[in-house]
Amino acid sequence: MHVPLGPGAEFDRIRRFLASARTGDPKYVRVGPGDDAAIIEAGRLAISTDMSVENVHFRREWLTPPEIGARATMVALSDQAACAALPFGVLVSLAVAADEPADMMASIMDGVRAAAEGQGAVLIGGDLTRSPGPIVIDVITLGSVERAVLRSGARTGDTVWVTGRLGAAAAAVSDLGRGRTPDAGARVAYASPMARTREARWLAEHELPTAMIDLSDGLASDAAHIAAASGRRIVIEAAELPVHDVAASRGSEEGFRLALAGGDDYELCFTAPAGAVEDARSDFQAAFAVPLTRVGTVEEGRGVMLRESDGELVPMPDSGFDHFARRQA
Amino acid sequence: MHVPLGPGAEFDRIRRFLASARTGDPKYVRVGPGDDAAIIEAGRLAISTDMSVENVHFRREWLTPPEIGARATMVALSDQAACAALPFGVLVSLAVAADEPADMMASIMDGVRAAAEGQGAVLIGGDLTRSPGPIVIDVITLGSVERAVLRSGARTGDTVWVTGRLGAAAAAVSDLGRGRTPDAGARVAYASPMARTREARWLAEHELPTAMIDLSDGLASDAAHIAAASGRRIVIEAAELPVHDVAASRGSEEGFRLALAGGDDYELCFTAPAGAVEDARSDFQAAFAVPLTRVGTVEEGRGVMLRESDGELVPMPDSGFDHFARRQA
Repeated sequence: MHVPLGPGAEFDRIRRFLASARTGDPKYVRVGPGDDAAIIEAGRLAISTDMSVENVHFRREWLTPPEIGARATMVALSDQAACAALPFGVLVSLAVAADEPADMMASIMDGVRAAAEGQGAVLIGGDLTRSPGPIVIDVITLGSVERAVLRSGARTGDTVWVTGRLGAAAAAVSDLGRGRTPDAGARVAYASPMARTREARWLAEHELPTAMIDLSDGLASDAAHIAAASGRRIVIEAAELPVHDVAASRGSEEGFRLALAGGDDYELCFTAPAGAVEDARSDFQAAFAVPLTRVGTVEEGRGVMLRESDGELVPMPDSGFDHFARRQA
Repeated sequence: MHVPLGPGAEFDRIRRFLASARTGDPKYVRVGPGDDAAIIEAGRLAISTDMSVENVHFRREWLTPPEIGARATMVALSDQAACAALPFGVLVSLAVAADEPADMMASIMDGVRAAAEGQGAVLIGGDLTRSPGPIVIDVITLGSVERAVLRSGARTGDTVWVTGRLGAAAAAVSDLGRGRTPDAGARVAYASPMARTREARWLAEHELPTAMIDLSDGLASDAAHIAAASGRRIVIEAAELPVHDVAASRGSEEGFRLALAGGDDYELCFTAPAGAVEDARSDFQAAFAVPLTRVGTVEEGRGVMLRESDGELVPMPDSGFDHFARRQA
């Protein structure tokens, strides 16, 4: 963790923060923050990184500083869930402008810590630096994993499933982008997503998923990643999509679009052998109070197709979230 | 590695780049780019992250896109050297504006790959995203390490050493900041630093360093990190400082200041038991053609003191690089 030696209350607070972070669960962590590198020992592990940039992934009018840190961390930890890994450590690179309020950096890091600890992970390192303007936060996550569930394991005849309900976060982003105040439920879905870590571990322990991904860019786009990595076609059943209430309240067409291509849900999408999930579904829903919905099938072929309610099969109308094409958040 | 599915030559090139990156040495890497996380298996490992931000750590007028990528990567790998770890993997989070030239992102990543491969590491993951303006590149490095050399091991009576000559990179930054063209040697020192990976491994294999750090912020500041972590005082001998020729050519006072507090050298500073390094020094210099210079001693006490050429002991006049105080690069 590079912390400048400079004076000032901000750095004092960050030093205290790091000192307290060191008291976290040291499982796998031999040396935590404060040296040139963290030293870990975890056997097989999953590592991922996810960068959140102000005015691309969030606006500061939309999120408090702790929410900025917590959301970036949870979004990053969602990649661990997507592999069915058990997260244990987080590193954070954070850039903020020198003229920000004195406690901006520490408040963002408070959110990082809360989100990480809520998922069983501790802060083990990072880099704090200055930005010429936008807040940039890159969160690196480490997880222990014996048998990672990859994107490439979907097989012809598998069924396709999603956790939770889709479209609420995208409904909030749509409102916020238009200067409207979103429903409370939609705002929470966007500002405070929950990585499906426990759910993913449960599914993997029951040996259900053949392939898995988290829904960051929208089902249309993320299912395409599984299809491409697995060399298969995925067919999504329009009628089966679990549209979130706050998305559905925008009208059925808009709700459907938000659920299919909106992104930011951080639910899981996985494939499983036909018939395997049905028996386990009620146990899963009882354990987590999270719905589990079959939304499609895996076939021979390529890409993602949508089966409309009338039975017609059409190419997916929207490739989902594209950082370089989507209007600025 | 999050790569948007969007169309366009830029993404095609990045996909090809990642496909080729997968052919690198797979030591320790079970799953490389392309899934939600990379899966690695390396026993004890060092992990570090280092963020470089446009107009803070570099300006695009100063560096070509491949140099931006290579420099950020080498600076990050220098943290592995500082622990005497052997780097094997790199993850990169990169943000560039949507209106940049089409091949900007791929050119930066070319530099990342060249620098990583030159140090024996392969690209195993990352995140590519959009920036509202500045280029931001966060490089996460992974290294294998049996016995990490930490900052905290300096003991009273130890000697303090640095590799190489100091101040050339800072001389270049000083020139560039004033709109002047730096000497070729100074520019190379700033634009293309070399992580002292092999040198650090050699020192550790000879069981010489008790504590070690890389010189990113300047000797004055980085020695203070060792002093603080070790609970000791470090005394630097002004007369012994190995000032680089291109820094010395600015006059003895300015050359001394650049070498002591300029930063960006990425040489190693380490402590070792008295008398231990002297015998090994000629072998080291023969192996690497890099000078090894004794610059001070470790004493009881706190902080860093400077012994002037006349023998007077003064508190270190400059705490070195501070991202939040230094004029914008």
